[in-house]
Amino acid sequence: MNQRIEPRTLQGFRDYLPETMMPREKLMETARRVYRSFGFCPIDTPALELLEVLAGKGSEETDRQIYRFEDNGGRQVGLRFDLTVPLARFAAAHANELGLPFKRYHIAPVWRGERPQAGRFREFMQCDFDTIGTESVAADIETALVIHELLTAINVGEFSLRINNRQVLNGLLDKLHLADKSVPILRALDKLEKVGGDEVAKEMAQTAAVSDQQAREILQFATIKGPADSVLSQLDQLLATNPLGQAGVTRLAELVAALKSCGISETRFQLDVSIARGLDYYTGVIFETVLRDLPSIGSICSGGRYDNLAELYTKQHLPGIGASLGLDRLLAAMETLKLIEPIRAAAPVLVTYFDKQALHDYLKIAAILRAAGIGAEVYPDPKKLGAQLKYADQRGFRAAIIAGSDERARGTCQVKDLRAQTSVEVSWRESGEALIEAVRPTLSAPSQ
Amino acid sequence: MNQRIEPRTLQGFRDYLPETMMPREKLMETARRVYRSFGFCPIDTPALELLEVLAGKGSEETDRQIYRFEDNGGRQVGLRFDLTVPLARFAAAHANELGLPFKRYHIAPVWRGERPQAGRFREFMQCDFDTIGTESVAADIETALVIHELLTAINVGEFSLRINNRQVLNGLLDKLHLADKSVPILRALDKLEKVGGDEVAKEMAQTAAVSDQQAREILQFATIKGPADSVLSQLDQLLATNPLGQAGVTRLAELVAALKSCGISETRFQLDVSIARGLDYYTGVIFETVLRDLPSIGSICSGGRYDNLAELYTKQHLPGIGASLGLDRLLAAMETLKLIEPIRAAAPVLVTYFDKQALHDYLKIAAILRAAGIGAEVYPDPKKLGAQLKYADQRGFRAAIIAGSDERARGTCQVKDLRAQTSVEVSWRESGEALIEAVRPTLSAPSQ
Repeated sequence: MNQRIEPRTLQGFRDYLPETMMPREKLMETARRVYRSFGFCPIDTPALELLEVLAGKGSEETDRQIYRFEDNGGRQVGLRFDLTVPLARFAAAHANELGLPFKRYHIAPVWRGERPQAGRFREFMQCDFDTIGTESVAADIETALVIHELLTAINVGEFSLRINNRQVLNGLLDKLHLADKSVPILRALDKLEKVGGDEVAKEMAQTAAVSDQQAREILQFATIKGPADSVLSQLDQLLATNPLGQAGVTRLAELVAALKSCGISETRFQLDVSIARGLDYYTGVIFETVLRDLPSIGSICSGGRYDNLAELYTKQHLPGIGASLGLDRLLAAMETLKLIEPIRAAAPVLVTYFDKQALHDYLKIAAILRAAGIGAEVYPDPKKLGAQLKYADQRGFRAAIIAGSDERARGTCQVKDLRAQTSVEVSWRESGEALIEAVRPTLSAPSQ
Repeated sequence: MNQRIEPRTLQGFRDYLPETMMPREKLMETARRVYRSFGFCPIDTPALELLEVLAGKGSEETDRQIYRFEDNGGRQVGLRFDLTVPLARFAAAHANELGLPFKRYHIAPVWRGERPQAGRFREFMQCDFDTIGTESVAADIETALVIHELLTAINVGEFSLRINNRQVLNGLLDKLHLADKSVPILRALDKLEKVGGDEVAKEMAQTAAVSDQQAREILQFATIKGPADSVLSQLDQLLATNPLGQAGVTRLAELVAALKSCGISETRFQLDVSIARGLDYYTGVIFETVLRDLPSIGSICSGGRYDNLAELYTKQHLPGIGASLGLDRLLAAMETLKLIEPIRAAAPVLVTYFDKQALHDYLKIAAILRAAGIGAEVYPDPKKLGAQLKYADQRGFRAAIIAGSDERARGTCQVKDLRAQTSVEVSWRESGEALIEAVRPTLSAPSQ
C-alpha cells in the first residue's frame, strides 16, 4: 500500500461493537414485540427526503441541523431529522390505501448536525409509535398502556409515567384571559424550581402583564401535587368554570380510571401539571417517563396527542397520538445502571476444534444443538485447546464442547460449563438428547 | 395553510407500507436468528462516513454512485454504498478490542445514486455476515451452511447454492501461462452461452493472444458440469500438474465432503466453474444462490473468500469470508412467487368497541390475550359493529371479540373466527383460560 487511510468515524458518529449492539438489538426486538402486541404495524420511509418536505416542519433549530445537499440530479435533499415529519408525509401520501384508524411503529435512524457533546450523537435510533385518525380517549389510554408495557418488558427497574394534558393549562389561561400569553408564562414557570414563586411572578408581570391575582392562581396550579385523585379534584375546583379546562380534567380522569382498572400501580404513574413538552405541537394528553434509579438522564419515552398531523401535505384532518422511545438514551441509562451483561458471543455454546480430522463431528454436534434452538459456534481452526477456551471466556460463552480422539472413539463429548467450571461427558452420536440436556442448564442466567 | 407541499418521495426511493414491511421485518428477524445461531454477532456503523474512507474502495461505478457532500464542518462525507467498506474500516479501527476470529453480521440500509430502473432502488437493505481472521476451510463450510440454513428458514421454495473457487480457474490460467490475462479471458468466457465456443476462442485470441490449444483447454474447463464428485474428478485431472489449481480442487473437495456429511442434499448445491463473481476481490471459494422457481431474478445470496479485508486502513493481515443476503431482491421474488400473505394487521385479534360504557372490559380482554402471547388491538372508537368488522376483514385480522351488554351481564364475550365465520361465546371475567383456548385455533395458518 502506498498510503493508509486512518479508519476513523466522523465526529459525532459512533460504531456499535457487539457488546453494545446485542443489547441494542434486544431493545429493538422488545419494542417491536410490544408495539405489535397492541396492533401497531411497522412501516419504513426513505432516509433521504426532498428538502421541501423536511424543512420548516420542526423548529428553527432542527432546520439548522438537517444534513442537506444537492443530489446528482440537482435536487435539494436532506436526511430525516425525526420520524414524525416522514410519518406526516407518509400518511398524506397513502391515506386512502391505509384507511383509518392507522397505527404504525417505525424504528429507524435519524440524523442531526448538532454540536457534539457528551452522550449526544449526530446519528441515533428513534423508536416511535402513533395512532392516527381518532380523537378517542381510548387511544390516550392505549398509549399509556404501551409505554407501561414497554418499560416493564425492558426490565430497566422502577419508572414513573408522568401525565399531563395541555387543555388543563390552556383552560386556566383561558379562564384568566391569558390564552395568548402561554409562551412567556411557560417560559417563566419553567424556572419555578430554580428561582421560586416570587421571581416567577415578577417575570410573568414583566413579560406577560400578569397581575398579582393571576400569578397566584397560576402558581397555585403549577404546584399541585399528590395522588392522582387528589390532583384531579384540585384541578376540578380550579377549573370549575372553564369548559376547556373541564374537558382536559375529564380526559385525565378517564385515563386515570382506566389505568387503575387495568391494574397499573399508582407508583408507576402520576399526574404532573408541570410538564409541558412540545408546546407548539401537542394539544391534549402529554407523557414523559422517568427512571426511578436515574432520573437525571431525563425522559426516556415521551409523547402526546396532536390535532392535525399532516396539514402541510394534505387537506385531510388527521388527529392522532404517539410517543417515542429514546433508544440510545435508554441504552446509556442501562449501561450506567449496570443492567447490561458484558457478553460478546451471539451463540452460547462454543464447539472447540480439537482434532484436525474430526471437523465433520464438530459440525454435527453444532447442528444438533442448533436444531434444538441452542446457538453453537464451531471454532474455525484446530488451535491449542487453551487458546480456544480463552476465546470462549473472553466473549462470555456459557458452555464449551470438547471432543478429542478418546471421546470420539466412545461416541461422546465433554460439555464444559464455563461459569461453574465443571464438565460432564455425554454421548451424542446415536441421539442428541443427552447432549442437549447437558447443555441446557449452562444457559440460564447467573444465579447470583 | 397557504400552500401545501406534495407528499412525494425522491425518485428511486420508496415507502414500505405495513403489508410489505411485515414480511420484510420477518426476513430480517430470520436472518438475525440464523446468523446468531452460528455465533455471528451484530455490529452497526454510521450511515455517513468520511469520503476518503468510502471512495476508491469499490469500483469506479460505485464511486460515481456515492451520495457525497460537504457537511457543515466543511468535511467531505458520503453515505455508505455497501457494508463491506464500513466493515473493513471497522475491523481496522477495533481489531485489538475485537480479537480474532471475529464473526459479525450487519443488517442496514445502503445508498447508491444509480439510474433508477424497474426493481432497482437507490436505498436498499443489506444483510451481510463475515468471518474475519481465519483461512480455514471450516469457515468456507460454515458460510455454505449459513446460506443453506438461511434459505431453508426463509421458506422460499427450492434453491441451489452454486459453488466455485477462484484458485481453480487461476490454476488453469497459471498452468497455461495466462495468469496475467484473466480479465480479458473472463470477459470473453462470460459470453459463452450467448455466442458459443468458436466466437469465444476468437475473442480470446484477439484480446489475450490465447492459442488454439489453450482455448481448447479453457473451453473444456468452462463447460465442466455434473454431480459434484464428477466435477471434482474432471478438475483434478485437468489441474493435476498445477499446485495452485490442486489447492483449489482440494478446498472444494473438503467443502463438498462436509456438506454431504452434514446431510445437505446434492439437489441443494452444485459446483459451477462458470461463476466468477467479484473478480478482483474474491480469492478463494465463491457462492451464488439461485431460486429454483425464479432463477431470472439472479443470485439472492452471494459471497466468497477474500485475502485481505482492510489493507487500505491497517497493516494487519485480515483474511476472511462472507456473504450477503439481497433482502429487497428476495422480498421482490417472494412477492412474484405469491409467498407473502396480504396481512396488514400486526396483532391477530381485534377487540371491538361495542358498548361505550364498557371500555375497561375491552381493555381487560385485550390484556388477557396479550399476557398469553396473543396480540390484541382494541378498536379506538365505539363505532357501528359493521364498520369495525369491515376494518378487521380488510386488514386480515384472524379473530374479533364482541361483547355487548348481554354478554357483559353474563361475564362472557363472543369470539368470532373471521375466516371460518363462526362464533363461540366464552366467559372471561373469572379466568382467561376459556377465552385464550377459543382464540388459539383461529391463529393457525390457513388450512388450504
